[in-house]
Amino acid sequence: MDNAAKIAVVKRYVEAFDKADLGIIREMYADDATVEDPVGSEPHVGIDAILGFYEGALASGAKLELTGDVRCAGNTVAFPFKVIMPGMEISPIDVFEFNADGKVQSMKAYWGM
Amino acid sequence: MDNAAKIAVVKRYVEAFDKADLGIIREMYADDATVEDPVGSEPHVGIDAILGFYEGALASGAKLELTGDVRCAGNTVAFPFKVIMPGMEISPIDVFEFNADGKVQSMKAYWGM
Repeated sequence: MDNAAKIAVVKRYVEAFDKADLGIIREMYADDATVEDPVGSEPHVGIDAILGFYEGALASGAKLELTGDVRCAGNTVAFPFKVIMPGMEISPIDVFEFNADGKVQSMKAYWGM
Repeated sequence: MDNAAKIAVVKRYVEAFDKADLGIIREMYADDATVEDPVGSEPHVGIDAILGFYEGALASGAKLELTGDVRCAGNTVAFPFKVIMPGMEISPIDVFEFNADGKVQSMKAYWGM
């Protein structure tokens, strides 16, 4: 998986929020992926739990805006961004780990209040 | 370990490069820590290997400059920064995981060419 393909997944992720399109989320994660958002909280394990988590996030009207370069390293990407919600903004750094099929195997979101 | 203490470690890390002070690096890492820089490369395991790695980095004259917020989440911090070296600049995101004693147990640096 080359850097361009990894960066494309990050852009699709932003697009999923723009369009509130859960199908994009479905397509980018492995069936047995894990999502820990924020790091330190109980992870969402498996695609059903992950889709449940994102369904709420997309329904909230949250939009994403990249605030710096997407860093590609090994089978991962890390990127800083803003989550813009009605009346609230947070600034996470997310890390995606990809599997051999180019699907996100693990997502960790680093942010706190 | 509260957020202020975690952020203080990041600031000490920047200071270590400013002063080319290996003692600060020694003090912030656990004896059995691991450093993977960049992610995807062979990790440096244990404090001796880690000090060997940083000795070269500090001797190169590299300086660090934070380029965004330090994100605190669970027992971790993630932060974007620039490494400024003679004739070269890279823009990593580093993640530190702390142990119960407030020492860095694992460092991962996300960057690529």
